[in-house]
Formats: sequence, C-alpha cells, structure tokens
Amino acid sequence: MSDGSSSDPVHCGFKLDRLAAFSDGVIAIAITILVLGLEVPSVHEVNPSQLVNYVRESLHPTMGYVVSFVVIGTFWLEHYAIFHFLNRATRVLVALNGLFLLCLTFVPFPTGLQAAYRHDELAMVFYGFSLFLCGLSLLVVWLYATWNHRLIHPHIATAVLQSMTRRLMIAPALCLIAIGCSFLSISLARLILLSIPVFYISQRTIDQGWQAAPAVDD
Amino acid sequence: MSDGSSSDPVHCGFKLDRLAAFSDGVIAIAITILVLGLEVPSVHEVNPSQLVNYVRESLHPTMGYVVSFVVIGTFWLEHYAIFHFLNRATRVLVALNGLFLLCLTFVPFPTGLQAAYRHDELAMVFYGFSLFLCGLSLLVVWLYATWNHRLIHPHIATAVLQSMTRRLMIAPALCLIAIGCSFLSISLARLILLSIPVFYISQRTIDQGWQAAPAVDD
Amino acid sequence: MSDGSSSDPVHCGFKLDRLAAFSDGVIAIAITILVLGLEVPSVHEVNPSQLVNYVRESLHPTMGYVVSFVVIGTFWLEHYAIFHFLNRATRVLVALNGLFLLCLTFVPFPTGLQAAYRHDELAMVFYGFSLFLCGLSLLVVWLYATWNHRLIHPHIATAVLQSMTRRLMIAPALCLIAIGCSFLSISLARLILLSIPVFYISQRTIDQGWQAAPAVDD
Amino acid sequence: MSDGSSSDPVHCGFKLDRLAAFSDGVIAIAITILVLGLEVPSVHEVNPSQLVNYVRESLHPTMGYVVSFVVIGTFWLEHYAIFHFLNRATRVLVALNGLFLLCLTFVPFPTGLQAAYRHDELAMVFYGFSLFLCGLSLLVVWLYATWNHRLIHPHIATAVLQSMTRRLMIAPALCLIAIGCSFLSISLARLILLSIPVFYISQRTIDQGWQAAPAVDD
Repeated sequence: MSDGSSSDPVHCGFKLDRLAAFSDGVIAIAITILVLGLEVPSVHEVNPSQLVNYVRESLHPTMGYVVSFVVIGTFWLEHYAIFHFLNRATRVLVALNGLFLLCLTFVPFPTGLQAAYRHDELAMVFYGFSLFLCGLSLLVVWLYATWNHRLIHPHIATAVLQSMTRRLMIAPALCLIAIGCSFLSISLARLILLSIPVFYISQRTIDQGWQAAPAVDD
Repeated sequence: MSDGSSSDPVHCGFKLDRLAAFSDGVIAIAITILVLGLEVPSVHEVNPSQLVNYVRESLHPTMGYVVSFVVIGTFWLEHYAIFHFLNRATRVLVALNGLFLLCLTFVPFPTGLQAAYRHDELAMVFYGFSLFLCGLSLLVVWLYATWNHRLIHPHIATAVLQSMTRRLMIAPALCLIAIGCSFLSISLARLILLSIPVFYISQRTIDQGWQAAPAVDD
Repeated sequence: MSDGSSSDPVHCGFKLDRLAAFSDGVIAIAITILVLGLEVPSVHEVNPSQLVNYVRESLHPTMGYVVSFVVIGTFWLEHYAIFHFLNRATRVLVALNGLFLLCLTFVPFPTGLQAAYRHDELAMVFYGFSLFLCGLSLLVVWLYATWNHRLIHPHIATAVLQSMTRRLMIAPALCLIAIGCSFLSISLARLILLSIPVFYISQRTIDQGWQAAPAVDD
Repeated sequence: MSDGSSSDPVHCGFKLDRLAAFSDGVIAIAITILVLGLEVPSVHEVNPSQLVNYVRESLHPTMGYVVSFVVIGTFWLEHYAIFHFLNRATRVLVALNGLFLLCLTFVPFPTGLQAAYRHDELAMVFYGFSLFLCGLSLLVVWLYATWNHRLIHPHIATAVLQSMTRRLMIAPALCLIAIGCSFLSISLARLILLSIPVFYISQRTIDQGWQAAPAVDD
C-alpha cells in the first residue's frame, strides 16, 4: 500500500508539488525582473561625463528595488510556509493562489512608478496598496485552506495554525500603516515596508509547530 | 521489479516529469513577463505633475494584463490536467507541446498591441486569435494523447477523457466568440475572455475522475 | 546498498538532476524572453491609424522569433536526450555545459539584429553563426561525456551513442549551410534553420536505444 | 523508520530542496536576462547601412555580458556546492541566502552601467564592488552554516569544510584585486574577473570530500 502510493501520481502529492513549483517559479521571476526597472543608459547615446549624476539619480530606484525584493521575498517565505502545511490542493485553492500570483507579478509596475514619481505621495500609496493586496490575497489563501482543517495535515495543532494566521496579518497591516505614513514622509513609509521581514523572522512558534508535527505522526 | 523501476530513469516517468517541468517554467515566465508590457516612465525624464494622468492612461494596459494573466493561467491549469493523465511521452507529443508553448509565449506581443491600439478592433481580433491558437494547440496535444488511450493511464475511463475534451473546447470557442464580438464592443470581447476560467472551474467531473482512478488501480 | 543509494544525495544523481534542472531553467527563460524582442509601441505615443502598417513591419521580427524558438527548442530536446544518458557529472561537464548555456542565452541578441537589419546578409551570417556555436558547444558536451563511456550508463550500446553523435552534428551542419546560403537568399537561409527539428524528429534510433537499455539492466 | 522519513515532508529535506530550487530559479533568471542589456535597435527606425558599426559598438557590452555570465555561473556552482553539504535549513540561513540573491539579481544593473560608461573607471569599480558583495554574502552563508557544523552533515570532515571556505574566499579576493586594477587598466580588471572560474575549477579537494563522505556514512 505505502509502496504503491509512492509511485502513484494521484496519492503522492504530485498536484500540490507542481502547484508549489509553479508558484515558486512565478515568484522567482517576479523578484528577479525587478532589476529591469533600473534603467541603463543606451550604449549608443551615453555622455561619459555624467556617471556620478546618473548613479545618484538611480539611488532612489535602487532603494525601491531593495524594498520590493525584500517584501516579495517575505511573501515567498510565507507562501512556502503555507504550502508546507497543506496536504492536498483543490480547484478553489488553485484559483486563490492564482489571485495572489496576479497581485504579486503586478508589483514591478508600482515599484517603477514609485521610483519615477519619487516626490509624489500618491505613487507611494499606489505602491503600498499593491503590496497590501499581495498580503491580503495570501491571507485569503491561508484562511480558505485552514477553515476546519480543510486542506491541512490533521496532526497540526490549531494553536500553530492560529499563530500562522497572526503572522500572515502582519504584512497587510504594515502595508496599511505605510500607506497612512506616506502623507507624512515617504522615507518613513518605505522603512515600515522594510520592517516586514523583521517581524516575520522574529516569530518562531511556527518552527516549533513544524518540529513537533512529526512526533505526533509517529 | 517495482523497486528497480522506481530508481531507473527510463521507467519512472523521468521524461514526462522533465517535459512538464520545462513547460511549467516557460508558462511561468510568459505569465510573469506580461508585466513588462506595463510601461514605467523614465526616472530621468519624468514630469512629477502627471502621475494621475499616467495611471489613468495605464488603466487600459493593466486590464489587458489581467485578461492575459487569467487566460494563460487557465491554460496552465489545463496543461497541468492533461499531463496528469499521461503515462509516457513521445517525440510527437514533445513537438505538439512545443507548438503550444510557441503560441503561448507569443501572447505578450498581441497583449501589448491591444493595449496600445485600444480603440482598434483589429488589435482585439489579433489578440483573440492568438489566444485561440493557444487553446487550439492545447486541444491538439490532448486529442493526440488520448487517441485510443495512446499515452493515457489505462485505468482512466473514456467518459472522463470525453469530459476533459469538452472542457478543452471551451477556451477556443470563447476566443472565437470574443473575436466576433470585437466588432460590437471591445469591452464585451474582453469580458468574454475573462469568463474562460469561470467555465473551467465550474466543471468538476475531471476531479471525480482523478479521485476514482486510484481505486481502480488497487 | 541499493536502498541506501536511493536516499543518499551523493549517490542518487542529485548533482546531475540539479544541473539538468538549472539548464532547463536557463533554456526556458531564453526561449520565453525572445518575445521581448517584438517591440510594442508606447501606449502613450501611439498613432491609432497605423496598426496595419505596424503589424506588417512586425512580420519579419515575428518570423525571426519563430525560427529562434524552434531552434532553441530543438537544442533543449537534444540537451534533454544527452542528460538522459549521463549517470554522473564532473566539473568539466559543468564548465562545458555552462559554455553551451552562454552561447544559447546570447541568441536573443543576434535574433534581434537579424530582425532589425532584415536586408543585410551580415546580420543573417551573425545569427547563423551564433546558432552554430550553440550546436557545436552541445556536441562538445556530448563528445566529452561519451569518450570511453566516461559519464554514460555502461549498459548503453556504442551504436546508440554513435547514432546520437550523428544526430548532434545535424544542427551545426545545417547552420553552416544556412550561413553559406545567406548570400544567396535570406529566406532560404531561414528555411534551412527551420528544418533543423524536422531532421531531429525523423531519427528514431535513439528512442529504440532508450527502450532497449532497461532490458539490459535487469 | 527510514520508510517513514522518506514520505514525511519535515524529515526528508523538503524545505532545503525547495530553498535550493528557488535560489536556482532566481540565479537562472538573473544569468539569462543579462542578454536584455544588449540593446537591439528598433525595427521601426533602423538605418540599414550601420550594421558593422552597430556590432562594433556592441562588442564592449558583449564582453561585459560574458564576464557577468561567467562570474554568476561560478557563484551558482559555489551555491550548489554549499547546499550539497547542508542537511537542514534555518530561518537565518533563508535570510542570508536572500541577501546573497539580492546582491546577485542586482548585477545586471552595474553590468549595464559598465558597458555604457566603458572608459570610466568608476563604472568598473561599481561593477567589481557589486560582484564582491555577491561573493562576500555567499561566504557569510557558508560561515553561518558551518559554524560548529551547525547545518552540516556530521560525517563531513572539518578539513573539507576548511578547503571549501578557502575556495569561497577566492571570488571576493579577486573582485577586490580587480577593483584596485580598474585604475590601471579596465581590460586587466575584466581579465581578473574572468579568471574566477579558473581558480574555482582547479581545486579538487571538495570533490574528494564528496566522494569520501558516503563511505563514512555506511
């Protein structure tokens, strides 16, 4: 029985793995093409005397690049943690996951706008709102999956799931705070977004849940 | 015998897995680089007073981005379902699958044209036709694979395969309808394309087929 | 012993799998970003009356896109066949494989030049030469791997390897012929490049080799 | 026990594999999109008489492309070697690995600047420094992982780890030397960067460590 299940594509979690791999691929591409938003002057038109000015002007877009990289990276980690808990996929999960990916792959656009319109709070609000939508859609994926342990390994304790829920609320909450702060200071708003991974990494309850789970399983 | 097959690259479906993984990679990249079609103004030339106008002008390309993302995402789901049923690959399958990927990776170009020439029905027709070719080539992959259960797990019932065939016909059919509606209203044509995943998700016969299959196998 | 090897990362071909997966990723990206060479007019500057002219002018780049897609796709298939025969990796194999990937990822540049300078034979020669280098470097990977069955499953017959060697010579040979024909007719040169997969698919000896191999193993 | 561990997502190294696969994806994309830095003239504006001049002007960016490809490829190899030794992941490892990926995905920007401002030593210094940061962050990943065999298979000898540490120091050291040489000759600096993989490939101690390890395990 157990031998058979390991070779059968229906039982061995193939679907979930392929969904996770596809999502990883999309996130990896989204995080890497952010750098294409950093303009390089045309080789055929460049004025050699302006390098220092050019780099100085690129400082702001580079900061935007770093913030988006860090926040998308954190969403990847959260996505990875969510899929760690799942034991099967449904069509609705696939659709909700697709909604999350749609929001995430959109991020390079507001990142670029925010870099171009660096003194305009609206650009920062638009940027913060797009990151908020990413966090919110990821939270919806999680709430759908955990409702009555719908798609979750049964040996995972409810307390672990609740801890994870709280953790997934941090990113959208900080995005809302950053949006509010945009009208005070764009730099402050950016700092708040940069703090998202700090909050994420500092919570270790989930790791304990992971380590405890197999013991229950044996 | 069964132990040997699990470690042997020829028997264990390695070829099929690598083909599926390569296709997933191509689709993931195609769906993610769509966002590069959303232009960001040059950091070095931007006029700060125009952000609202700029975002308003970007609304149309953004809608095109969402439609292409959703339709390509649905094609990925269908591709994933097709490969779930296969038990081996042939050279012809690889070639037909390559034709599908060729059509799919082309989509960002008509997506961009349709966003730029937003009041021109021809741009919408060109766009709808390129999506139609994606759906048609995927249907051809499926018809080739299922002809006399050529590449299909033998325990999959014919009724399940027929249900899948009908489902794969929805996307190209809706593309043809959208092309026809382009001359009436471009917005209506776009709405029809957006409805493709709704039709796809609402059919659950295939899922039942998947769940029934292992029982037959035991 | 055999059980241990299947779970041990050193014995079970983990290195080879990861090298193959990395190469697949690079090839998948290279084949997909070709479409970025198809220019889309700026949403903010477009003149609505010119769509038909624009599409007509894009016909030539689109043909170049199709040729590059088909040839790179064939190289992927050949790369996939090569890695199917390998049973381990060495540092030199990794370096030679890297050289192949360097040539392959360069292809979008001559593809674009050939599309832009459509009436210039030199652009076609440059393009054909870059494809020739891809084919040649892949042949070198194969010759290194098969020399005295260096990295090959021992149960693979020499005749199968020789058949594969001949097959890997087709692409570089056709590239050289296409380069020569560029001075006669650019369209003819392109047709010759498009015929590469036809020659590849029509040779079935390798498939027989694959199917025979496990029988020897038992 | 061993059967259970092979199917359990917590014990079987799933986390480590997915982190390695995500990193591979990001590196594969970064190395492939380098070619997008090679400008192709607009199909709609090109002057056919200038191809030779255009290619000559592109020679310098192409050299920059080759250097970045080779250096990023070497970092991939080193990253691959590091993950080969790991037996588990921690949150800090994920964060440090993310820092390495952030530095690596940034490389296309200084590569482009260095190609555009080809006679400006500052562009070369900026470029060399960004490669130095990649090498340094990878070294930090390794030092964190190997401290007291923190995340390392216990059967790996300390001498092997020390040899690996020395090897990981080569790339950042050569980057610093290249930065220093930029003020003498930009071509010399580039040659030094190109020599990074030569030093890497010529050290075979690690391979011996890999081959010796399983023997200890049995």
